[in-house]
Amino acid sequence: MFRRIYLDNSATTAIDPDVLDAMLPFLREMYGNASSIHHFGQQTRAAIDRARHQVAAALNARPNEIVFTSGGTESNNLAIRGLIEARVGSPTAREGTSLEHKGHIITSAIEHPSVKNVCENLETRGYRVTYLPVYENGVARLEDLKAALRDETILISVMIANNEIGTIQPVEEIGKLVKELRATGKKIWFHTDAVQAFGKTKVDVEEIGCDLLSISAHKIHAPKGIGALYVRSGVRLHKQNIGGRQERERRGGTENVAGIVALGKATEISEASRDENSRLIKTLRDEFESAVGEKFPDAVFNGDRTSRLPNISNISFRQIEGEGLLINLDMQGIAVSTGSACSSGSLEPSPVIRALGRDDELARGAIRFSFGKFNTKDDVKHVLEILPRGVESLRQMAPKVKTEVR
Amino acid sequence: MFRRIYLDNSATTAIDPDVLDAMLPFLREMYGNASSIHHFGQQTRAAIDRARHQVAAALNARPNEIVFTSGGTESNNLAIRGLIEARVGSPTAREGTSLEHKGHIITSAIEHPSVKNVCENLETRGYRVTYLPVYENGVARLEDLKAALRDETILISVMIANNEIGTIQPVEEIGKLVKELRATGKKIWFHTDAVQAFGKTKVDVEEIGCDLLSISAHKIHAPKGIGALYVRSGVRLHKQNIGGRQERERRGGTENVAGIVALGKATEISEASRDENSRLIKTLRDEFESAVGEKFPDAVFNGDRTSRLPNISNISFRQIEGEGLLINLDMQGIAVSTGSACSSGSLEPSPVIRALGRDDELARGAIRFSFGKFNTKDDVKHVLEILPRGVESLRQMAPKVKTEVR
Repeated sequence: MFRRIYLDNSATTAIDPDVLDAMLPFLREMYGNASSIHHFGQQTRAAIDRARHQVAAALNARPNEIVFTSGGTESNNLAIRGLIEARVGSPTAREGTSLEHKGHIITSAIEHPSVKNVCENLETRGYRVTYLPVYENGVARLEDLKAALRDETILISVMIANNEIGTIQPVEEIGKLVKELRATGKKIWFHTDAVQAFGKTKVDVEEIGCDLLSISAHKIHAPKGIGALYVRSGVRLHKQNIGGRQERERRGGTENVAGIVALGKATEISEASRDENSRLIKTLRDEFESAVGEKFPDAVFNGDRTSRLPNISNISFRQIEGEGLLINLDMQGIAVSTGSACSSGSLEPSPVIRALGRDDELARGAIRFSFGKFNTKDDVKHVLEILPRGVESLRQMAPKVKTEVR
Repeated sequence: MFRRIYLDNSATTAIDPDVLDAMLPFLREMYGNASSIHHFGQQTRAAIDRARHQVAAALNARPNEIVFTSGGTESNNLAIRGLIEARVGSPTAREGTSLEHKGHIITSAIEHPSVKNVCENLETRGYRVTYLPVYENGVARLEDLKAALRDETILISVMIANNEIGTIQPVEEIGKLVKELRATGKKIWFHTDAVQAFGKTKVDVEEIGCDLLSISAHKIHAPKGIGALYVRSGVRLHKQNIGGRQERERRGGTENVAGIVALGKATEISEASRDENSRLIKTLRDEFESAVGEKFPDAVFNGDRTSRLPNISNISFRQIEGEGLLINLDMQGIAVSTGSACSSGSLEPSPVIRALGRDDELARGAIRFSFGKFNTKDDVKHVLEILPRGVESLRQMAPKVKTEVR
């Protein structure tokens, strides 16, 4: 049988069978609208409450600080636009003073498109944004953040860990700084995108000291289309999905009960086995990387080798196009990615790899291998047999094509 | 065994087992991110394309005119805010001229909260909104709409059918009027919320002549957390979920594959059996109503008796609180609602019933019975046995409580 190996766990994950089992009653007999007062509604309301406790417990938050959303992108939009619009005022004619007074945001140069593009959109609306550099190791520096602070800075949005290279950002230091600033009376808030970190490292809103934190279900073996935003008590957001009174009036729309139950269950499972799984996954990843380093002395490993998630390996191979290698590997049953799935369709080399200062060749030759709890040592062995052939055949093809075209 | 009868199909519906079967592969082995280039992504991309064709076919639209969302509320938000922000400009300081120049919207007085509250929010942002009256029969009139038109009118948003009383609005006449206006060079767009109508009546974007149309999966026996917005080719929307390039850059966020597949399948099933189901459901509803009319000569039927959906019966009983009756019926296994589930938590009588000009007693005594394809004649018989006892016991309780309090 043709063997398929999935090494794209940062793009999405297989649903854990136990998570599916937890969902199924809510796709069958328990179909009530959680806002309904009757029995059917009470059943699903109780299930949502349970899931809210599960997610809150994992984040060291209170249940009423959890807002369920349709995923990480919506969580990031609600966090940033919701805070900005509640803080600066939503776009009324009255607010329109000079551009400089609308407020300033600090973020990093390697945020997910759902943060980066929201920030860029806000720039067109008169806000100012500073994109912190991440240097060759893919990590933003606190001193740059301090230097970027202005009187008008109202929001810092820096991810816990990057989705393409896995590097971990100094979020705890940022949280501490924000607390200090607030102690002096400054009105400033801190959002962090925890979509990639959640389930791989401990994500504790008190340790981080954030006001807003985004997570997504489908990165932790639950289905797509569901996520959550942690909103610290007292932090006011301007609603983005305007409608009914769901989610304590922070997010309108009939609750995705089965999805919410799945996120709760996946969180519980993931937290219970996080340290063990992360250790096993890191072992696979590290074995893979050291073998690649031996086979390809000119391969460049992207992102800090220490301060990063256990599951991501991002490697640039010289003289190849990442997409070509991706397709070559796919034909041999191995699923990997170039950049993030959310950027697919883009012909540009990954902005994240570019932000590390890599040249065009290395940026275009970058491949992300992301491991998950369903991967085995045998998977790694198999990939290590196939990968060199793939790289070699692409390298041989490149000049050949040129010859033919001549 | 305690018998439960679900008569709240306008709040949400049981998932059709065939819809669940269609979803399951995408909750199991086909878990790829649809934006991934490899095999796993191709599988789910193909499934989404298929669903997009299914939904487009039902609406008489083109597949690329369908944008999948997280539900009806998001569809309505994207339609209205997306159009307004693309048309008038998103909230930049530059746009801030006088309030009168931001644009005018016409909607009805009985829209779902996800339209009504969006419009009210836009009013706080400097837009003007006209809420068309619906008179005692719950139907807006074209002459009122014509009278409300101004030079600044840029959007009409009128639902096909109301969610509490089921009355059908003159959307085809509105569509015709909008076409005529546009032929004179006027820039005006027409959105309709088809969430309740879809699956019960024919919903054809060409016959209606709308530019934007919202649907939701969980009203047609598919899961919660998924919906779609029809966007006529050439109509530009300002993205609300800003992120990756999904949905042709109209809605960021990893696609909810299983949900999308379910919506496609449910649409196909629903369209194939729509006329037959609607006829059967109407028979149940009409039998129910004529029996209620006989048993309660003072009951008031809310909404036009002819121009309405086949599945909704909204009845005001004098001398009772609707919520009291709802709870009484629930204890006897019958699930109904007062107002819409999306308004639950509100202590106010339904704004929809109020818009019909009903007095407080009738507005507070309104109950919605909504039938679905899984209801039977026997359900109706059973409810007709229980309902009179419920109403009587509440009527007896009311003065008794007063006596005790005295």
